[in-house]
Amino acid sequence: MVKNWPHEWEGFVEGRWSNTSINVRDFIKKNYTPYDGDESFLKPPTAATQKLWEQIMELTRQEREAGGVLDMDTKIVSTITSHSAGYLNKELEQIVGLQTDKPFKRSLQPFGGIRMAQKACEDNGYEVDPEIVNIFTKYRKTHNQGVFDAYTPEMRLARKSAIITGLPDAYGRGRIIGDYRRVALYGVDMLIEDKKYQIDTSLVRMTSKNIRLREELAEQVRALQELKELGNIYGFDISKPASNAKEAVQWLYFGYLAAVKEQNGAAMSLGRTSTFLDIYIQRDLDRGILTEEQAQELIDHFIMKLRIVKFARTPDYNELFSGDPTWITESIGGVDVDGHHLVTKNSFRYLHTLENLGTAPEPNMTVLWSKKLPRKFKEYCAKISIKTSSVQYENDDMMRVIHGDDYAIACCVSSMRVGKEMQFFGARANLAKCLLYAINGGVDERMKVQVGPKYRAVEGDYLDFDDVWDKYDAMMEWLAGLYVNTLNVIHYMHDKYCYEKLQMALHDRDVKRYFATGIAGLSVVADSLSAIKYAKVKCIRDEDGIVTDYEIEGDFPKYGNNDDRVDDIAVAVVRGFMEKIKKHHTYRDGVPTMSILTITSNVVYGKKTGNTPDGRKMGVPLAPGANPMHGRDTHGAVASLSSVAKLPFRYAQDGISNTFSVVPNALGKDMDVFVGEIDLDKLKGEQ
Amino acid sequence: MVKNWPHEWEGFVEGRWSNTSINVRDFIKKNYTPYDGDESFLKPPTAATQKLWEQIMELTRQEREAGGVLDMDTKIVSTITSHSAGYLNKELEQIVGLQTDKPFKRSLQPFGGIRMAQKACEDNGYEVDPEIVNIFTKYRKTHNQGVFDAYTPEMRLARKSAIITGLPDAYGRGRIIGDYRRVALYGVDMLIEDKKYQIDTSLVRMTSKNIRLREELAEQVRALQELKELGNIYGFDISKPASNAKEAVQWLYFGYLAAVKEQNGAAMSLGRTSTFLDIYIQRDLDRGILTEEQAQELIDHFIMKLRIVKFARTPDYNELFSGDPTWITESIGGVDVDGHHLVTKNSFRYLHTLENLGTAPEPNMTVLWSKKLPRKFKEYCAKISIKTSSVQYENDDMMRVIHGDDYAIACCVSSMRVGKEMQFFGARANLAKCLLYAINGGVDERMKVQVGPKYRAVEGDYLDFDDVWDKYDAMMEWLAGLYVNTLNVIHYMHDKYCYEKLQMALHDRDVKRYFATGIAGLSVVADSLSAIKYAKVKCIRDEDGIVTDYEIEGDFPKYGNNDDRVDDIAVAVVRGFMEKIKKHHTYRDGVPTMSILTITSNVVYGKKTGNTPDGRKMGVPLAPGANPMHGRDTHGAVASLSSVAKLPFRYAQDGISNTFSVVPNALGKDMDVFVGEIDLDKLKGEQ
Repeated sequence: MVKNWPHEWEGFVEGRWSNTSINVRDFIKKNYTPYDGDESFLKPPTAATQKLWEQIMELTRQEREAGGVLDMDTKIVSTITSHSAGYLNKELEQIVGLQTDKPFKRSLQPFGGIRMAQKACEDNGYEVDPEIVNIFTKYRKTHNQGVFDAYTPEMRLARKSAIITGLPDAYGRGRIIGDYRRVALYGVDMLIEDKKYQIDTSLVRMTSKNIRLREELAEQVRALQELKELGNIYGFDISKPASNAKEAVQWLYFGYLAAVKEQNGAAMSLGRTSTFLDIYIQRDLDRGILTEEQAQELIDHFIMKLRIVKFARTPDYNELFSGDPTWITESIGGVDVDGHHLVTKNSFRYLHTLENLGTAPEPNMTVLWSKKLPRKFKEYCAKISIKTSSVQYENDDMMRVIHGDDYAIACCVSSMRVGKEMQFFGARANLAKCLLYAINGGVDERMKVQVGPKYRAVEGDYLDFDDVWDKYDAMMEWLAGLYVNTLNVIHYMHDKYCYEKLQMALHDRDVKRYFATGIAGLSVVADSLSAIKYAKVKCIRDEDGIVTDYEIEGDFPKYGNNDDRVDDIAVAVVRGFMEKIKKHHTYRDGVPTMSILTITSNVVYGKKTGNTPDGRKMGVPLAPGANPMHGRDTHGAVASLSSVAKLPFRYAQDGISNTFSVVPNALGKDMDVFVGEIDLDKLKGEQ
Repeated sequence: MVKNWPHEWEGFVEGRWSNTSINVRDFIKKNYTPYDGDESFLKPPTAATQKLWEQIMELTRQEREAGGVLDMDTKIVSTITSHSAGYLNKELEQIVGLQTDKPFKRSLQPFGGIRMAQKACEDNGYEVDPEIVNIFTKYRKTHNQGVFDAYTPEMRLARKSAIITGLPDAYGRGRIIGDYRRVALYGVDMLIEDKKYQIDTSLVRMTSKNIRLREELAEQVRALQELKELGNIYGFDISKPASNAKEAVQWLYFGYLAAVKEQNGAAMSLGRTSTFLDIYIQRDLDRGILTEEQAQELIDHFIMKLRIVKFARTPDYNELFSGDPTWITESIGGVDVDGHHLVTKNSFRYLHTLENLGTAPEPNMTVLWSKKLPRKFKEYCAKISIKTSSVQYENDDMMRVIHGDDYAIACCVSSMRVGKEMQFFGARANLAKCLLYAINGGVDERMKVQVGPKYRAVEGDYLDFDDVWDKYDAMMEWLAGLYVNTLNVIHYMHDKYCYEKLQMALHDRDVKRYFATGIAGLSVVADSLSAIKYAKVKCIRDEDGIVTDYEIEGDFPKYGNNDDRVDDIAVAVVRGFMEKIKKHHTYRDGVPTMSILTITSNVVYGKKTGNTPDGRKMGVPLAPGANPMHGRDTHGAVASLSSVAKLPFRYAQDGISNTFSVVPNALGKDMDVFVGEIDLDKLKGEQ
């Protein structure tokens, strides 16, 4: 691949990464310096860092006072090269680059949908330039319009009734992680050269699939050329590899910045960058051209930039996601497939930003947890968790089996090999509502209209488990088909009208695509079916005979208490729905996965779900993710966790979340328990 | 389909067209009045017609003086509703509607390619508004850009060397005939209702194919809504069916006008409208609300409008097509599948416009010739042909077998059922050049670079027939694959970036698509192979060993003399190439067809083809279509026609053209021969 060893690689150990192909993993394996020590080497923030952070805090205050948004672009459509250079304070910033020409100004991103862009502006008292509206109405179709052109009436209705919810048809799907490290390691020219090789070696039998791929690769090359131009705008030539730590951080950040300038995705995750960057920092430290203080400053300034990534979003979006999270997830630590941990000093530096800059939800620092992580690192994680409540943990030992040792987390729990896999995000099917459809023969309990198929409704006063299960199974069959087909439309149109060309340019050509479905309301379904089976559930009907409420006579086992009688129902539902999903054609041969991971949207979904046979009342939030319903897990934390842990990962590979709070003081006293004893096996979750 | 019989249909005989589905053919069959009489009923132009035509002649003079273009839009992108109403003379015009807001002003159509739009303007001293260039560069991709994103280097090279020529990648493919009659018969609202029914009954398994179709149908509905708006702009409510002859002509013309406002296709043919419109005229004549003079005036004004349809085109385009023809082909006459002729008084009225307005190449009046056409009509055709040289004849008896009795001609010879079939136009493969590649092992004889595969070149001084044929067969195999794949790219991108939504809205949902390939240089190939076989052909090589010229020793049979020895070679080439074409995947399951019909572009192709073994010199035009090379058909007209007639229509279903001139005086004296005796069987051609 490489004809001459570029001087920027001096000191690096060669390998497949340098001799054969783009291979960041190989570069890391050959060159990183594992660190088993403690945090005592870490440095406090520099004066520059403090001053810049104060500036950000002041802007944040102003933004809050302005009602949530400080400034918005209404005329300049955001592209990789749309804006001139913008700075917080050019003299002080080690790492530069803003989404627009000034901090806290939200960019205009109409490719997903011009009406959403307009709504986002209007909600904040701005108005999109009429000429832009005209262009994106008359000449340039958007993802949103494409989707609604192809939706069936049934899909529209299922969306309206919220049996399928939160679909990425009115916002960007996200869940694609560009391998931003490639920009630093190879420089953009080498990446372009590689893409051209990919084009040269693509299939030439011109089926629609192959034509699409060739066009996408051409778009990717264009995106890389624009990325170089973005570097130029800030005065950097990123066509060549980064030659030192500062450049490495800067090059990598330009890659990420280009992505967020191009895409307003629901999750714009960063990847797995800390150990990669440590190699550059370590080389500079060894050369004596960088101090630890300067190293920390680079990382602090980089993280600071990530913290001020902002998108213009609609009120609907903010309701669904409880705000407008960016999900800049960074995956830290983990272990390689040979059993060596991947912790470096830079893993500490990243977490240390939570001390230097204070706590923050973004970037979403996620530790890939393994029993094999070094003890001192585990202790530091625990310390930071206790101090900041801002660290997410996920089970590396389980995910490594599937994805190897260079995967990262997109959004909260979606794991994918960096630069090799991506996800078609699919939001959720509301299985609780599906149960109500089974009972009412497809009639929506709130809208009182036929949404699902006209199957037979339940008859009589009391629900019979076998009858309801049989009807539920049939209704899930319908829902799975409708759901997958709806997602097929969405992702076809997203590719057509809002293709992530920069992010995909930082992928291999032949990526694996996960087709990520999700479910909501699992614990409500499990408890409802348990109530029907183990207690007596009486139907209350309205004047049209639609069952709208339930009376439970007697007690029943509840999910979250490590009771197989109900936990097995939850398992059967998860497995059953996933098997039904897998029966259907998926766009681009996407590999179907499923998640059980509503974290905030369960509140919205609950609002749209009527009374359920478990005694939950209309409008009450569903439990988040795979959580038991609030207050029903009465046998303690371990029993609750055990119920969740029974859910089969192979049927919910995209993640099972369990929102689980521990009183910080208790944890503090008993840190050893936290660090060494809690078995996270089979549990990928937020802490 | 129809709940209430609309008052506009009073007096019409009902049928499937009114009770079941959109079916113009059934309407015609049930309602038309065949006419066996002569032309004595025809009326001269009215004063209004004369005045309007003088105005057009004056504008034409001004246009010529201005260098070919009188005015161009540089800022308003042409869409169905982009312009306010424009008139020649509002008081005098019976039929209204212009492409822009004034006559002879060419519209701006950048969806096919912004650079072509710019070139077309620049060539005439205009400049496209920079903001429009910006939109179609940054936000709205075009057909041309899409194509070049997906082309392989081999395709680009084959295009450059002109072994594949005239591809519709830098101009609109055309060859789609909207069934404009539907607008008049049903009104737009009924067509929209029908489209919505088509959407409702489309496949819901969301494969990419089905999603594409659903989106296209949504676009079609949008186009129909815009079509109604176009009517409104001119003060007409075309949501309802036309209620009289004047409205019928006007509604139908609005349909066509919308098509040319949306698309700048290489052939924007009209269809088969004369007998359809006769039904309305006859009804009004019978009701006493229209005179023959008024009827002719309607048709004259309609034809006048068609004559001033103009597009902005590039110098390249004009070179290829020897000007900028619009190919507004109207198919007149013909016989139905039960043997009744379809000639009406209106068939005469259409031809009579050539007398009332004088001769003109557009619209391209094409008589669907059959032995069963009424004698008086044949005589009138002959008379008009002699007088104007502006009538094209095609063999209805042959095409009816394939397409039934409601097909029309797109461009010059491409036959298709109106509203049910369309064509992916594919220009030509240069088979003469392919023979030179076979001889030189894929090295281009002019560019001296490897274009085709590196097969073994011929060796030695003299060409051996078996050796050359074997190599030619292999080279055609390569060319056929490359050609079909190139066309796949073009039509995929045309659909994606420049979809003919209005024209397709005037089609059924499930159209049959012909995948039209074409060949150029047939007679050169036949004569060259004949020379190699029957004479001695010596190779002249350049300093690199590339064969660049030939010396022929002895005589050989030449195509065009009814000599099977060479004619059979031509047949083998046609059959062989078509069979190779059929081996390949075609976009949207297009049914491969082939044409042998260069009419003017053979001159350009000849320029790019080196010396050939038949003695033709580099740069000399290839013979047009299936013609013998000029001057080689030495055995008279009948022998020449007979050679052409041997070419198998089933392998060249898209048409075989033979440009054949007869001295008008001779024809005049012997009109009976023309009318009754020349057997047009197996010959579809221009006269």
